[in-house]
Amino acid sequence: MNSFQLNLKTFIERSARYFPENEIISREPDDSLFRYNYAQYYERVQKLANVLKFLGIKKGDKIASFAWNNHRHLELYFGIPCYGAILHTVNIRYGEKEIAYAINHAEDEVVFLDKDLVPKMEAIAHKLLKVKAYVILDNTIPETSLSPVFSYESLLSSADHTYSFEELDENSPASICYTSATTGLPKGIVYSHRSIYLHASALCFTDVMGISEHDHILPIVPMFHVCAWGIPYAAIATGAKLILPGTRPKAEDLLRLIESEKVTFSAGAVTLGIDMLTILEEKKYNISSLRQLMLGGQAVPKALIDKYSQKHGVPIVQGFGATETSPIVTFFHIRRDQERLSDDQKNEIRSRQGMLLPGLEMKIIDELGKEVPWDDEHMGEILVRGPWIASEYFKDKRSSTSFIDGWWKSGDIATINEQGSIRIVDRDKDVIKSGGEWISSVQLENELMAHPDVLEACVVAVSHEKWLERPIACILLKNKEKGTTNVEEALVEWLTPKFPKWWLPDQFMFIEEIPKNANGKYNKNLLREIVSQSILSSPS
Amino acid sequence: MNSFQLNLKTFIERSARYFPENEIISREPDDSLFRYNYAQYYERVQKLANVLKFLGIKKGDKIASFAWNNHRHLELYFGIPCYGAILHTVNIRYGEKEIAYAINHAEDEVVFLDKDLVPKMEAIAHKLLKVKAYVILDNTIPETSLSPVFSYESLLSSADHTYSFEELDENSPASICYTSATTGLPKGIVYSHRSIYLHASALCFTDVMGISEHDHILPIVPMFHVCAWGIPYAAIATGAKLILPGTRPKAEDLLRLIESEKVTFSAGAVTLGIDMLTILEEKKYNISSLRQLMLGGQAVPKALIDKYSQKHGVPIVQGFGATETSPIVTFFHIRRDQERLSDDQKNEIRSRQGMLLPGLEMKIIDELGKEVPWDDEHMGEILVRGPWIASEYFKDKRSSTSFIDGWWKSGDIATINEQGSIRIVDRDKDVIKSGGEWISSVQLENELMAHPDVLEACVVAVSHEKWLERPIACILLKNKEKGTTNVEEALVEWLTPKFPKWWLPDQFMFIEEIPKNANGKYNKNLLREIVSQSILSSPS
Repeated sequence: MNSFQLNLKTFIERSARYFPENEIISREPDDSLFRYNYAQYYERVQKLANVLKFLGIKKGDKIASFAWNNHRHLELYFGIPCYGAILHTVNIRYGEKEIAYAINHAEDEVVFLDKDLVPKMEAIAHKLLKVKAYVILDNTIPETSLSPVFSYESLLSSADHTYSFEELDENSPASICYTSATTGLPKGIVYSHRSIYLHASALCFTDVMGISEHDHILPIVPMFHVCAWGIPYAAIATGAKLILPGTRPKAEDLLRLIESEKVTFSAGAVTLGIDMLTILEEKKYNISSLRQLMLGGQAVPKALIDKYSQKHGVPIVQGFGATETSPIVTFFHIRRDQERLSDDQKNEIRSRQGMLLPGLEMKIIDELGKEVPWDDEHMGEILVRGPWIASEYFKDKRSSTSFIDGWWKSGDIATINEQGSIRIVDRDKDVIKSGGEWISSVQLENELMAHPDVLEACVVAVSHEKWLERPIACILLKNKEKGTTNVEEALVEWLTPKFPKWWLPDQFMFIEEIPKNANGKYNKNLLREIVSQSILSSPS
Repeated sequence: MNSFQLNLKTFIERSARYFPENEIISREPDDSLFRYNYAQYYERVQKLANVLKFLGIKKGDKIASFAWNNHRHLELYFGIPCYGAILHTVNIRYGEKEIAYAINHAEDEVVFLDKDLVPKMEAIAHKLLKVKAYVILDNTIPETSLSPVFSYESLLSSADHTYSFEELDENSPASICYTSATTGLPKGIVYSHRSIYLHASALCFTDVMGISEHDHILPIVPMFHVCAWGIPYAAIATGAKLILPGTRPKAEDLLRLIESEKVTFSAGAVTLGIDMLTILEEKKYNISSLRQLMLGGQAVPKALIDKYSQKHGVPIVQGFGATETSPIVTFFHIRRDQERLSDDQKNEIRSRQGMLLPGLEMKIIDELGKEVPWDDEHMGEILVRGPWIASEYFKDKRSSTSFIDGWWKSGDIATINEQGSIRIVDRDKDVIKSGGEWISSVQLENELMAHPDVLEACVVAVSHEKWLERPIACILLKNKEKGTTNVEEALVEWLTPKFPKWWLPDQFMFIEEIPKNANGKYNKNLLREIVSQSILSSPS
């Protein structure tokens, strides 16, 4: 047909041209709201390209961002890839070792960072091998040992305001994200213009997120975390209003933004969804503008979905994905034959991870490599392939165990029901293999967290002489003052009708805090160690 | 990222797997409805692939379809390209000369044709150079001189019901359509798997057609006409219910289908839209299930939009496109800042051809190649480029005049308003160049057709000594018995407040029939000849 290349510049050029006055809003560190429009945004993206040229950046060079969700970070999202360089969005929640590793492994040459993150960068700057400049995403430069250092706004202010982006080969790398590994250092995934373009397009399908120019979109999920699930790219592709929540947003900041900017679609971690709901129990915010609130990072408890639906009329939706998959693989979908179900039945559908996106291929296989039946009982590992699924880790020998025959082995264990909707039941390494059968730690956790006294629950395996592994439940109570008397009994009673007898945890441990990793997920490796050490004898 | 190729098989494999019971319905020649589901459809698509193998078809071979919109034609839509061969959808409304030319030029080896079209094919079979077999899309073979000839159903019934489609290079040709040329024989456009995939994806965007699994889609536009505007591909990609209107559907057949199958989205020629409305004035059909009725082939008169909206609550939408563009380039879009407009104002927006689709680039240029201002007054020619825009005609020297520097020169003249919505005002060759200024024949026609006494109107240029060209209006009256007395006067009065004085036609001719070409569009070349011959002296 032709040799036209799928490039990110097509998205921004069209939106800036057709929706120049559509707004982009960014919450400033002082809580005020910075507002500009697509025309101004695109002008600054072009200025940024001229700045990159000034800094001596060449096509294919890597540039790190170390920043919150704000408008300057969004400028990097398009300016760097459209220039032909590669944006590495460094996870600011990583430990120093991981940050230094990721920046060195990616061979980043410049770091663009938020002002409040300067101390964190100073602590590791001496370890960085290739970085030749730091750019503070601000008007001014704070006192710092980083050197040489520039102010982003100063650089932009002296840059030419037009830049003619060339058409790049669509397979050109556009960005890199690192993902925490179960063991060892983070692993990098390189996204291409093509993969980001096709993933963002899928998000705009009516049957997926349905992102549209009419939307007011609040990406809570960090822009350093799998490109904020690809949502900013889809938003810019359509000309949607974007609201970026800025530095260290708390649940109440988000509620305020949803109300004042009439947010229609938002996406963030389940934990933030819980926090917002807690605040809503005491304070009134109008969140009725939300047509969907997507929660992720872990499975969303049905109880949370019910509360949002019943008390606020807000549909919670979720999907399945990972850094390796750009990330959306499956997404909530009410099928045509489910349209007439009750709200409660629809919430049940929303409590699953949903259906495969058009464009992808997926299979769920058992230990013998055979696809599991669609009975929602048999568990298997999810394998995926498609235009936005990675085929390797960046310069990493660990690729060979995760990418096989064109498929990515997710390590996630799921069931699939007759309607083709999946439910993640566990991680391959977290599923409890008891007497040849599998017990889902996640399903136990969900039911435990649905109990009114439980705030958080985490179930891990401990070794067992006879059964190989048995489940132990770690519980964080809502009201610690109440004490734990009779709670264990109540929880056993709560779980008994819901699971086979042999699924019930052998022991309940009431703890003060459940350890979490950089992405806010339970750190089950650490918890397993804690639990194993505290248990001296195997349960009977 | 990976080497995964965009293939049409991904669409059908996913939909057959996840929506096996979703229906596909096809109107039979006897007016009964044939029904089957995606699982059965896909099984027959696989059988078809085995039939192609049996017929000795190789990758890259061309195969003609000569058929109405029915389920067997839809099987060819996926079976032939997924097998690796190329589907040439021959326009059954072409004259014998054009049909023979297209089949020979494409080098088709097999022709799949509907039973009722056998006589038409027999008449030209002796001219076909490469065709080695005919397949009748039916259970039985009628008496025919076509040879060798097979029955589609017999072939399918003996074919194996599984076929493993290989992953093709996404740039592999998938189908060919021919488009009528202003002068000379039809010109062919080759679509690739990639171009069809990306075009269909765009149609699924909420901001474009929003095609979804929830839709019940009735493609009225013939499947031999630019892949029925790509709609069947988008429908299959999502798992939508498809309703195919079969042989020679009349307006009332369509209304019956819309009512009985609760059609949500339909698309067809403006003339059919007019015919349906005429019937609705006398008979009652419930068409309220339609969320959108897309009309095309020519600009949709505002009066028609108003009537559908006011009397039936059905929004008429339209776009701009051509065989060279797969075809959708622009589509109706109510912008966020237009949400609160009145119905009438929204109908005004619907009377335009809409906004550029995400993924494409467009410019409207004047005779000097400069982009026209967005004032809705300056006229210019539309140029387009993007992943589903052709870069050449198939084996045709005429390519060089239409494809320049990666852009397709549409030959369509448009204005664009401040909101970025275009209005096609004419064809380059139909615009009336009067005294150095341009007069849009289409705008005059639209206003004339909005007059209660006018059924059809066609405005063409005649030569003029002083002004070079002047407009003449040919009018088909609704009620011929009434006579033409005072009608000319009334029409002048009707047009006067709407246009500059020098736009008004120099003469009105009342005629019995306006000649149309194979696609149902006015044949202005022929009309110009008729008009010129009947005018002996230049108008004063």
